[in-house]
Amino acid sequence: MRTVLVIGIGAGDPEMITLQAVRALNRVDVIMVLDKGKESRPLVELREEICRRHLRDRPYRIVEVPDPRRPRRSDGLSMAEYEAAVRDWHVKRAEALETVLLDDVAEDGCAAFLVVGDPSLYDSTIRVVRNILDRGNVEFGWEVVPGITSLQALTARHRIPLNGIGEPVAITTGRRLSADAELPDGTTAVMLDDALACQAIDDPEVRIYWGANIGTPEEVLREGPLTEVIGEIADARAELRERTGWVMDTYLLRRG
Amino acid sequence: MRTVLVIGIGAGDPEMITLQAVRALNRVDVIMVLDKGKESRPLVELREEICRRHLRDRPYRIVEVPDPRRPRRSDGLSMAEYEAAVRDWHVKRAEALETVLLDDVAEDGCAAFLVVGDPSLYDSTIRVVRNILDRGNVEFGWEVVPGITSLQALTARHRIPLNGIGEPVAITTGRRLSADAELPDGTTAVMLDDALACQAIDDPEVRIYWGANIGTPEEVLREGPLTEVIGEIADARAELRERTGWVMDTYLLRRG
Repeated sequence: MRTVLVIGIGAGDPEMITLQAVRALNRVDVIMVLDKGKESRPLVELREEICRRHLRDRPYRIVEVPDPRRPRRSDGLSMAEYEAAVRDWHVKRAEALETVLLDDVAEDGCAAFLVVGDPSLYDSTIRVVRNILDRGNVEFGWEVVPGITSLQALTARHRIPLNGIGEPVAITTGRRLSADAELPDGTTAVMLDDALACQAIDDPEVRIYWGANIGTPEEVLREGPLTEVIGEIADARAELRERTGWVMDTYLLRRG
Repeated sequence: MRTVLVIGIGAGDPEMITLQAVRALNRVDVIMVLDKGKESRPLVELREEICRRHLRDRPYRIVEVPDPRRPRRSDGLSMAEYEAAVRDWHVKRAEALETVLLDDVAEDGCAAFLVVGDPSLYDSTIRVVRNILDRGNVEFGWEVVPGITSLQALTARHRIPLNGIGEPVAITTGRRLSADAELPDGTTAVMLDDALACQAIDDPEVRIYWGANIGTPEEVLREGPLTEVIGEIADARAELRERTGWVMDTYLLRRG
């Protein structure tokens, strides 16, 4: 039977991968890469660098699969429409990947997805794999290997705990942050925010810890009272995108 | 100047450590271990196993530091008293560790804390290090290296995403779960819960994904509708503690 591995490779630094993940990589015959166009080129390069460094003693092939267009939050969809569009997109991806599994992976072969960060956090690969299985056209065993998220890289570089003592943490998206009336208790970690939704928060008690392209040579970190440093963060973000062509950022908000 | 490294070593499996953490380990002269009595013996053993496997080419010493008694949530303290007691306990720990740094680590030496899981999530080491620095009696540079948390090991073993599509995640404690009126939207991840606080939730729509001693040979996983499987989980937990002497568990709750 075929095996499919969903391997978290960490967030930016090729050494931010676990030994477990390196061991998993060295079982792989075919690496499946969804080609999302040039916007994700630095992430494709991170995957390639990880294979060069850590997948040494074994022949492997990288198969690039053209990715169906992902619905955007900027498409003007309602939350329900957006979620339906994302689900539909997952099915199309499943069809494309199923074809690769059947045509390019031997019946006892091993295929892998290399996921930047951790496959469990705001990543669709696990759902895609379940979709392929549910369709019933190809059978395989599968495993998930966790990886360090950009959130963990952020707190490590700022040398701060994610949570206050005994306090909760909310992990949310930029879209939700814009929609919600106020910050929940404790710490709020924001991911998938391409518009710095926190700019709308006008509370002098809130502190931000922000980081972009963490673990890469272009890493930028900023922290301070949100209302005082947000302008500087927006500038640093724009400058980074201008200079390097990509920004992968995340941040924490904490009151007091 | 001295260096202090706070190194996340992952959650249970000695291979669940990053290459970055292994590289950091191999800079270390003195590993500082807070001895918490026999209850944490398996975690002390995980640290020792990690040193045996990954810290090979360098002499190092392990210095055990008796840990002042940690306040317990079962001490009958109010939330405010409990938080004050935890802060006081951090100061006492800082005093004990400061002495080790001054007496046992050379002025250009490197000391490390090996933190099970990730130093950013419900762990006091970062606060302890900041306390030592704030006291001003010993100067050092310091770094934090992230590690895989038990939450990530849990989702990987269950092969599930932590979040619903576009939905938020709340990370909270057993104590908070008991105190809060109802579950927030999205997924709730519960840590530091030694009494399975979710037993009080009587909602047939809630699904639980539970795991104990994940990544060890004694790993136990359960999932299902909370009200249907909670009895079985409580039994499995008691049996595991009876048989192995320790339980480190965590779980997710999700509606629908």
